[in-house]
Amino acid sequence: MVKTGNILRELSARILAEEAFTTLVDRPGMRIERITSTGQATPEGEWYDQDTDEWVLLVEGAARLRIEGESEDRAVSGAGWILLPAHCRNRVTWPGRSRLRSGSPVHFTPGGKE
Amino acid sequence: MVKTGNILRELSARILAEEAFTTLVDRPGMRIERITSTGQATPEGEWYDQDTDEWVLLVEGAARLRIEGESEDRAVSGAGWILLPAHCRNRVTWPGRSRLRSGSPVHFTPGGKE
Repeated sequence: MVKTGNILRELSARILAEEAFTTLVDRPGMRIERITSTGQATPEGEWYDQDTDEWVLLVEGAARLRIEGESEDRAVSGAGWILLPAHCRNRVTWPGRSRLRSGSPVHFTPGGKE
Repeated sequence: MVKTGNILRELSARILAEEAFTTLVDRPGMRIERITSTGQATPEGEWYDQDTDEWVLLVEGAARLRIEGESEDRAVSGAGWILLPAHCRNRVTWPGRSRLRSGSPVHFTPGGKE
């Protein structure tokens, strides 16, 4: 079945009030999520550590990301993307501001590991 | 290995002169491509017919798409997405114009079929 949507619309008040995850497509081998952030950084000392590779496209806004073992943050701006291999520990250090007061990345998580 | 890029940059003169496909990520089960269009429509009478599902996000610009069997085009604008199941025949009827004089969709093609 054909499905359609818009990453920057269909943003409810709840989504804009907190960091929100919306699953757009979920099937064996791949999940596509919209993540809407409104200023949330990863708490100090915590890291994301995922079992699967993740490809992130920042559709709108700006953010800074720290990869464990690197000495500086990586800046990601609108239309920027980053491929994070499984178990590449990372944290959002600055989720930035934008027209929506949010970064609106889309995460693509393939089921397989490399 | 962490990889990074930007959908709307790294656009060479060649890419802007014609419809161009750039593979960003290619691995078992998933391929991520940037497609940069500068006004190309699918030739009259021709249809795309793919063996795999395809999820398309229009990062910038606007386009119209016709799904076989539907009586009207579907309009897709910036940040709009569409999920096309395998063998859902479709054609681009109007690739629109934008700041880049292009639509810049990203296609996500999972390897598996539903």
